[in-house]
Amino acid sequence: MRELKEKIMSEGIVLSEHVLKVDSFLNHQMDPVLMKKIGEAFAEKFRDKKITKVITIESSGIGPALMTAYELGVPLIFARKRKSLTLNSDLYISKVYSFTKQEESEITISRKFIDCSDSVLIIDDFLANGQAALGLIDMIQQAKAQVVGIGIVIEKAFQDGGRILRERGIKVESLAQIASLSDGKVRFVEEALAK
Amino acid sequence: MRELKEKIMSEGIVLSEHVLKVDSFLNHQMDPVLMKKIGEAFAEKFRDKKITKVITIESSGIGPALMTAYELGVPLIFARKRKSLTLNSDLYISKVYSFTKQEESEITISRKFIDCSDSVLIIDDFLANGQAALGLIDMIQQAKAQVVGIGIVIEKAFQDGGRILRERGIKVESLAQIASLSDGKVRFVEEALAK
Repeated sequence: MRELKEKIMSEGIVLSEHVLKVDSFLNHQMDPVLMKKIGEAFAEKFRDKKITKVITIESSGIGPALMTAYELGVPLIFARKRKSLTLNSDLYISKVYSFTKQEESEITISRKFIDCSDSVLIIDDFLANGQAALGLIDMIQQAKAQVVGIGIVIEKAFQDGGRILRERGIKVESLAQIASLSDGKVRFVEEALAK
Repeated sequence: MRELKEKIMSEGIVLSEHVLKVDSFLNHQMDPVLMKKIGEAFAEKFRDKKITKVITIESSGIGPALMTAYELGVPLIFARKRKSLTLNSDLYISKVYSFTKQEESEITISRKFIDCSDSVLIIDDFLANGQAALGLIDMIQQAKAQVVGIGIVIEKAFQDGGRILRERGIKVESLAQIASLSDGKVRFVEEALAK
C-alpha cells in the first residue's frame, strides 16, 4: 500500500534491527485518514470471504480493525489484555508473549461474541513473531469459529510470524512487508526482490 | 443521541447501581456504524472550535475518538496506560485512579505530539468520577495546550465527574446522560427531568 509505505519512510523511526517506531501515525498518534484507507484496503482483500466478525487486540490494532469492520459492515471485537472487574465470566482465554514488552499477558474474549457460525478476520498493527495472532487464532478455534484470514498493517518479514501463519494455510495479507531494518534503514520486501 | 440511547436500553446490562456494561457495542465488541455516528455527533458539537488534536485514553476511547478525529480532519492521540519499552522518553505523565479496576495507573503522552499551539478535544467512552479526564487535562496543561472541550459517549450523571469538569468552565458534551441505575434499570437524565 503506497500511502502506508511513504508514511513509514517519512515518519518511521528505526530504533534497532528489530524495532520500528511508528507512533506518529499508528501506535500512539493515529492518522485517521490513513486508518480509513487501511480499512478500505483490507476490506477489498477479504470482501469475498463472507466475514461476520473482525477481531483484534487492544490497543494499537483497534484503529485499523475498526475501519476495516466499518467497511465490511460487521462488528469489531477487541481482545482484552487482562481480565477487568466487569468482564470476568465466560471468557475465551489465551496466553501471548510480547518480545517488545518482555512479558506474558493473558488475552480474553467474551464467549458471547463468537460462536461456531462466525467467519473471523483478524486485524493487527504489526506481525513479528506471530504470538498475538496465534493467541487470537487459539481463542477463535476454542469458539469453533473459522479464521478466514489475517490482515496486518506492517509485517516484519525478517521475523518468523508470517511464515508460521502461512504454513498453517492461513491467508495473511500485509499492507507493508519489511525485509530489513539494518543500518538504521527501512527496506521493504519488494525492494529486496528487485535487487 | 437517539441511536445510542436505544442501544443502551436494548443491550446495556446494569450490573449494579454504579456499573453499566455496554460490552456488546462499545467496550469489547464495537458497532462500527454507531461509532461513526458518534464521531459525527461530536464533530458537529465541536466543529467551530478550531480543534487541532483529539485525545483519548486506550482502549475503549479509541473507537469513538478515531471516528471523531476523522470527521474533524485532525490526528488522534491515545494516551498510554503505562510506559512501554518503545515509548519511554520525553513523556507527559499523569496518574489516574480507576474505581472500576480499583487501581492507580500512570498515563502518558509523548511530548512531541502536543504543544502550546494545540487546541485539544478530549473524547472518552465513559464519564463517572472524572479521573481519566482530569489526568488528560493535566497532561494537556503540562503541554501548555488548550482544552477546548470534552466529548463523552455515556455520562453517569449521578457521579461527580460531570459537575467537577463543568465547574472548571470546560464544555462537556455527553451523548447519553444516565440519571440512575437503581433497581436494575437505566434512567436517562431527560426522563428524570420530565417527571
